[in-house]
Amino acid sequence: MSKVEIVAVGTELLLGQLVDTNTAHIAQALAANGIDVYATHAVGDNRERIAATLVAALQRADGVITSGGLGPTIDDLTKEATCDALGVDAVMNEEALRDMHERFSVVVGREMPANNRKQALLPRGALMLKNPHGSAPGYIAFSKDGKFIASMPGVPSEMKPMLAERLLPWLGEKFGSHSFITTRTLHTMGIAESELDERIGDLFATQENPKIAVLAHGGRCDVKLMAKTGSSHEAQALIEPLEQTIRERLSGVIFGDDDDTLESVVLRGLCERGQTLAVAESCTGGRVAAALTRVAGASKSFVGGIVAYDNSVKIQHLGVQTEDLNAYGAVSSEVAAEMATGARERFGASIALSVTGVAGPQGGTSEKPVGLVWFGLADPSGVKTRKMQFRGDREIVQQRATAYALGLLWKRVRQAEPNVAPTT
Amino acid sequence: MSKVEIVAVGTELLLGQLVDTNTAHIAQALAANGIDVYATHAVGDNRERIAATLVAALQRADGVITSGGLGPTIDDLTKEATCDALGVDAVMNEEALRDMHERFSVVVGREMPANNRKQALLPRGALMLKNPHGSAPGYIAFSKDGKFIASMPGVPSEMKPMLAERLLPWLGEKFGSHSFITTRTLHTMGIAESELDERIGDLFATQENPKIAVLAHGGRCDVKLMAKTGSSHEAQALIEPLEQTIRERLSGVIFGDDDDTLESVVLRGLCERGQTLAVAESCTGGRVAAALTRVAGASKSFVGGIVAYDNSVKIQHLGVQTEDLNAYGAVSSEVAAEMATGARERFGASIALSVTGVAGPQGGTSEKPVGLVWFGLADPSGVKTRKMQFRGDREIVQQRATAYALGLLWKRVRQAEPNVAPTT
Repeated sequence: MSKVEIVAVGTELLLGQLVDTNTAHIAQALAANGIDVYATHAVGDNRERIAATLVAALQRADGVITSGGLGPTIDDLTKEATCDALGVDAVMNEEALRDMHERFSVVVGREMPANNRKQALLPRGALMLKNPHGSAPGYIAFSKDGKFIASMPGVPSEMKPMLAERLLPWLGEKFGSHSFITTRTLHTMGIAESELDERIGDLFATQENPKIAVLAHGGRCDVKLMAKTGSSHEAQALIEPLEQTIRERLSGVIFGDDDDTLESVVLRGLCERGQTLAVAESCTGGRVAAALTRVAGASKSFVGGIVAYDNSVKIQHLGVQTEDLNAYGAVSSEVAAEMATGARERFGASIALSVTGVAGPQGGTSEKPVGLVWFGLADPSGVKTRKMQFRGDREIVQQRATAYALGLLWKRVRQAEPNVAPTT
Repeated sequence: MSKVEIVAVGTELLLGQLVDTNTAHIAQALAANGIDVYATHAVGDNRERIAATLVAALQRADGVITSGGLGPTIDDLTKEATCDALGVDAVMNEEALRDMHERFSVVVGREMPANNRKQALLPRGALMLKNPHGSAPGYIAFSKDGKFIASMPGVPSEMKPMLAERLLPWLGEKFGSHSFITTRTLHTMGIAESELDERIGDLFATQENPKIAVLAHGGRCDVKLMAKTGSSHEAQALIEPLEQTIRERLSGVIFGDDDDTLESVVLRGLCERGQTLAVAESCTGGRVAAALTRVAGASKSFVGGIVAYDNSVKIQHLGVQTEDLNAYGAVSSEVAAEMATGARERFGASIALSVTGVAGPQGGTSEKPVGLVWFGLADPSGVKTRKMQFRGDREIVQQRATAYALGLLWKRVRQAEPNVAPTT
């Protein structure tokens, strides 16, 4: 099993002006080809620091893959640092020079500027990696003990094809890897990370292959199974029994796997049951509808919605009673119920969901603080409401309320018998 | 001038299953506070490797900032590795334990599970960093030679406030930096990157301080001015004349600066003119409303909207004529106009915007391909429509159509005289 480290080069990365997406892309491609990534790094456009990073990485790993710092300007220094790290000089690569001249005359339509010439210099003994999408060629250079430094441009549209078409085939041949990482992700909702740990934590400790990891994001947790095997058939065989065990232990909280999202699962469930859905949103301001309509084919089950931001809209378009608004306020069980019932009737949907709350930062009171949100769910059997208190700023309250609303829909759809007739 | 390194912890980063946005966020905050980032790293959930990375980083830098690996599960190992790297043991922090008990009883609404207790263990001698948005506290731990390891959770919604409210103030006090990077961002719309380059490219070459950078994202460009100075007063003096020049050259395409967004500028403009707004969305499915209601105080001008996904909703809730739907189709100038007029009348708003298009991947025809979107804008003077053809997948078409809709509103608000009376 070979292992590599990845180094991204560029001062803009250290200033946080650019999010490094190259590293994740390279790491993913390596994992899929059975090559372990030991660590990743970002360094600035500084020759000594790049060289020191490369030297340290080569001590730990079989090779290093870099992106960035191959351009024609004075602060592009990856190649110089590679030469320093390997103790070799740079020599003109005639094929690279020809490619660049041709690219300039055919694609750019003018003579190649003199300062581009330096891009055709490669570390002595290196293999050239052609760049059909830009001027800077990449290379694979070698240390005396047979380790390698492979360097690619930082522009993703040049780096990605070079990786896929040039570097990965070379790595596959060199390391003859017959090992692949296959993953299965189980998405949960309504369970805290610590409770997940109580239910399946023992499996973490005993399981080496597949490995298990828990990823928390946006108030929800994913359980990830990663199998390292020689074939996808073997991977399936490794993952399946463990997945079964986890599914049993987490019964009731797994809403989907791999590419599923809460909204895609809700819509699929509605579709299977021949049901339709409408929404009435106040504090989430359209986010629940936007999440649902992100899914291709949403129109099969999602009828539409009202963003009832102003109270007048709640009254006129959802039939909320003025007296109830006055007596209980817009953020109340009563108004949430009337919004859901009104949306269900007026849109002629099987199910309707409502959200009304205090998103903040203004509008909170001691009785109804920022983050208080009421949800309503109307269906043929009537309407139910539910209250939650979210913590965080406006953005987080809106996000969490949207996720919670989708979770309520999921639970409702899951429990429902197929073929409940819509109203109308 | 102090310098730090940043370490992101998580095997999912090395598998490329997650793009690390935390590191860029932390780096940007440090740059703004005059703290140099020397290098950044990502390591897996492996105690020895995390510890080795921390030890190596502390040799080069004055301190290390980590994100991730503070959760309650067995593969959360940042704290253990920090103790290893510093040669200290972990001790129970009573304040952290109290916070966690309180959080569970108040926010989560149940007893704290036993395995969360380990989250309240901190390296001996460490300062606790409170986490109001999650259970894992952060910490600042110290080496014998006065260097530090500051660790924060990996969940961005927990990490960001901890960084801003706890860690940055501590860093500012400790390092008392006297050099600050001050930035001013000018947001443009309706101008291509290459045209921007033609209008202000000459300034890039001649300007060293402030530096100028153009950042393109989501079809729009930002122009960023960065000044490095000893005081914010000096920064102002450096930035102002250059900003003035750029504003003159880019007259008509700058819609705001710094924290402004297109939606916040639209809402502010409406508010100043005493106007109100309603929306009727089909293919954007609530995204325009969601963008507007992301802005605190949106309720002053934004009345509400209809997500008219199904044609029946367009007819019943917006008054679109069935004959027109049949004759011209839902994606047409006629229907866009009727949707906007209908929304304006039914919501009693000064202005109403409509969006109807083919988001894809299904539903496109040779006459009305995926990406074709009609917009309508109704105001007291009547209704205007406009057609755009966007390229890309469903997500991109929805994003671009939302941005374009907000751009139309911005142009409309900018041209409008203040105090146009609303209808009703």
